Amino acid sequence: MIKHKSFSLADLAQRFQLELSGDPSLSICGVGTLANAMPGQLSFLANPRYRKELSATRASAVVLAPAEASAAPCAVLLSPNPYASFARIAALFDTTSEAPVGVHPSAVIDESAEIDPSASIGPSVFIGPRTRVDAHALIGAGCVIGEDCVVGVRSHLVARVTLVKRVRLGTDCLIHPGAVLGADGFGLAMDAGHWIKVPQLGGVILGDHCEIGANTTIDRGALEDTVLEDDVRIDNQVQIGHNVNIGAHTAIAGCAAVAGSAKIGRYCLIAGGAGVVGHIEICDRVTVSAMSLVTHSLTTPGSYSSGVPLQETRDWRRNAARFRHLDELARRVKSSQNNENIE
Amino acid sequence: MIKHKSFSLADLAQRFQLELSGDPSLSICGVGTLANAMPGQLSFLANPRYRKELSATRASAVVLAPAEASAAPCAVLLSPNPYASFARIAALFDTTSEAPVGVHPSAVIDESAEIDPSASIGPSVFIGPRTRVDAHALIGAGCVIGEDCVVGVRSHLVARVTLVKRVRLGTDCLIHPGAVLGADGFGLAMDAGHWIKVPQLGGVILGDHCEIGANTTIDRGALEDTVLEDDVRIDNQVQIGHNVNIGAHTAIAGCAAVAGSAKIGRYCLIAGGAGVVGHIEICDRVTVSAMSLVTHSLTTPGSYSSGVPLQETRDWRRNAARFRHLDELARRVKSSQNNENIE
Amino acid sequence: MIKHKSFSLADLAQRFQLELSGDPSLSICGVGTLANAMPGQLSFLANPRYRKELSATRASAVVLAPAEASAAPCAVLLSPNPYASFARIAALFDTTSEAPVGVHPSAVIDESAEIDPSASIGPSVFIGPRTRVDAHALIGAGCVIGEDCVVGVRSHLVARVTLVKRVRLGTDCLIHPGAVLGADGFGLAMDAGHWIKVPQLGGVILGDHCEIGANTTIDRGALEDTVLEDDVRIDNQVQIGHNVNIGAHTAIAGCAAVAGSAKIGRYCLIAGGAGVVGHIEICDRVTVSAMSLVTHSLTTPGSYSSGVPLQETRDWRRNAARFRHLDELARRVKSSQNNENIE
Repeated sequence: MIKHKSFSLADLAQRFQLELSGDPSLSICGVGTLANAMPGQLSFLANPRYRKELSATRASAVVLAPAEASAAPCAVLLSPNPYASFARIAALFDTTSEAPVGVHPSAVIDESAEIDPSASIGPSVFIGPRTRVDAHALIGAGCVIGEDCVVGVRSHLVARVTLVKRVRLGTDCLIHPGAVLGADGFGLAMDAGHWIKVPQLGGVILGDHCEIGANTTIDRGALEDTVLEDDVRIDNQVQIGHNVNIGAHTAIAGCAAVAGSAKIGRYCLIAGGAGVVGHIEICDRVTVSAMSLVTHSLTTPGSYSSGVPLQETRDWRRNAARFRHLDELARRVKSSQNNENIE
Repeated sequence: MIKHKSFSLADLAQRFQLELSGDPSLSICGVGTLANAMPGQLSFLANPRYRKELSATRASAVVLAPAEASAAPCAVLLSPNPYASFARIAALFDTTSEAPVGVHPSAVIDESAEIDPSASIGPSVFIGPRTRVDAHALIGAGCVIGEDCVVGVRSHLVARVTLVKRVRLGTDCLIHPGAVLGADGFGLAMDAGHWIKVPQLGGVILGDHCEIGANTTIDRGALEDTVLEDDVRIDNQVQIGHNVNIGAHTAIAGCAAVAGSAKIGRYCLIAGGAGVVGHIEICDRVTVSAMSLVTHSLTTPGSYSSGVPLQETRDWRRNAARFRHLDELARRVKSSQNNENIE
Repeated sequence: MIKHKSFSLADLAQRFQLELSGDPSLSICGVGTLANAMPGQLSFLANPRYRKELSATRASAVVLAPAEASAAPCAVLLSPNPYASFARIAALFDTTSEAPVGVHPSAVIDESAEIDPSASIGPSVFIGPRTRVDAHALIGAGCVIGEDCVVGVRSHLVARVTLVKRVRLGTDCLIHPGAVLGADGFGLAMDAGHWIKVPQLGGVILGDHCEIGANTTIDRGALEDTVLEDDVRIDNQVQIGHNVNIGAHTAIAGCAAVAGSAKIGRYCLIAGGAGVVGHIEICDRVTVSAMSLVTHSLTTPGSYSSGVPLQETRDWRRNAARFRHLDELARRVKSSQNNENIE
């Protein structure tokens, strides 16, 4: 289904400022993995895990770091950051049908909403009171945008996205299907044996160049806003509680969850399924490993983990049973060693 | 975007039966946090974590417990439960555009469905056979309601909610976008190397005053119903399996999961990312901490946890490696101490 | 709400090739659990946990294994696999209103899409360029299908499903509401302090008889496809990353997550909330227990677990604190025992 565009190797080298070694007239008509690229395609080597596949690749050219070049059986484009260079080249081969400018006749737009004439509003979209959709924004089929929202210039809601209320997206944001931004935060007060709902009066603010994955949820703040700074990248099925603050360039992988009022710094990497409890602060450049739980503030950059290693269940069961008495075990060792010292 | 309503402090004190200390004629036109409330706004102190912010607040009034009153630099409203009192006051400042009564022309309603004339049915809504929508119910844009469902009086489906089949909501329920209630439970039987689907013939029943978060899923029962009693509050992205039973006033935070046929008591608090395995029973007033896994029935109220603490990855790795041999370690300590005793 | 069909016990025995003991003319008009089935209904015993309920059942007949038959107080149908036999019988009592063949007038279909005349396309559905919907497929209300997709014969998208781009479903697939297949994989390259999006040029391919749960997400591949072989069964809120490969007959329970490029074998069982990190390989017939994290390739069939057991929080806290120093504890034990040996 990928259209048959092609580019000479010399053209690619020049566009992306890469050093070329090999035949500059080679025509590249697509991209592929080292293992499966066909002649005429370009591949890349960034993860050392795949180095062993380099020598046997049938790709016509490979983007890689200068240190790897000698092992390539084909033309090479040298890059200090092969993955980034490859991403830029691959984008040339990406295709999506152009969405038509204007409002689809089945869309329902509140009369107080402002839609830039260059925006594209798809079928069965609903846009509520006082919401603004800026130039070249793209609202795909089935999206629902409530009141007092802003969709910034060139921002793209793929399909079936919901912006509930008071959600402001910067420019060039990309929101995947099923994402819900601006739903009520989970605020409850117990009173006389019943829950009372705490009104959620804040909004959600995203900076520029943010990406939000499919079925991810970002609640609006209780009194102030939930804020994602520029270039925050969030994967699928992530939950961001009310009043969370996420610093620029932080990335959060699938199924992670950040509880209310937590503050995460810039350039953090939160791996899949990890959790961050509420009301804590994580400094810049922290990495949290998969399915770890951050229960206290972190003030030093670095990598953090929790959990125990996977084992065969029968072995795991014996060790896990001992964990139930670990304190007792430690006390016993300590008292025994004290005895030794006394002896 | 918040409308400029205002209330005198005396009025607020009277409406919510709070003792007032300060100028009763003070006009309150909004609410805010201790740190960021502006003059003219009211704040609250409930979580001791924020006590240090009280003395510097610029709020014109603060709701707090009598014991905290002396430290307030402004007028105060005294409450034995400041968070609940604040929630009630804040609700005065919440605003949502009124949804129009009646059925939007783009909605598709099965001819056998019964829609109360006071209900509001939004754009692109679908309502299936034999489903009933009661008085003052509010069905937002893009909701899909299948067959044999009931939406109780004043219940509110915000937008893009799906009630698949045989889902009955009580009165005053609030369901956030992307939630799916009444999908098939995960019932499979392996036969001759292939899975056979086990039909899911039950429904989902919610009591009154339940709240269900964005993108949460609650499956319908296999033979009997999945049941949530009154005032159950569920956050975003929670998964509730078929035939689960959840007692009144229980709250479940984001990304938690309850497997099929588990029974959870009343007034339980299940924290974010926690799991409950299937076919077990949790008694009333149990608290489960974040990302803990409940693998057996709990018959004593109290707080329960699992997991290990977060550490820097290099420290964690050393400890985690030892976990793989914890049983051996415990045996060694025991045998060594037996030896000592023998000696 | 279940229609009043009925079948004689003899008829059921013959249809499903079961041995009957009891009155063959007994009329069965529904199914129920051992505890709650009424006279006239049929129940089953498959999980030994429920054996104690057999003697008191009011069901008119029970499907069970021959070894359990003597304890039944009613007619029995004997099956070597009672759960599978029950599933087949229960399907006779399942009811869903027939969806009308043809395209609902509110659906929007791209002119280059091909819709088989026997397919059913519901209200507010959008179908994009070059997509094909095959015979007897059923696309429920509010589904959005993007470009270059295929919905195979008799496949059923219940409602509000999104197939984003290049998603191909085999025959007889069942996709529950809120599921998103074919969204961009989470591919990012860091360059000069900013993220660059890595284009996702692959698709998603499902074999025949796959089932995908509500709000589950399956990303499309970066360069090659994300692949689920035949008869893969996935529960709600599961996340499948780009380029994942899942072997035939594998089942994955709710809230589990599989990171990019992981390869899972055939006949695996991944329990709820479990995680699989990226770029690893799990062989056939592996079982992973609830909320366990698979961090390395598994080459031996069997059951695997991680995590520590739930305890009362005050006990857990003492043990968890010791985990932080487990390596030190182990070293101390070792050195102490070496000393003993020296002595």
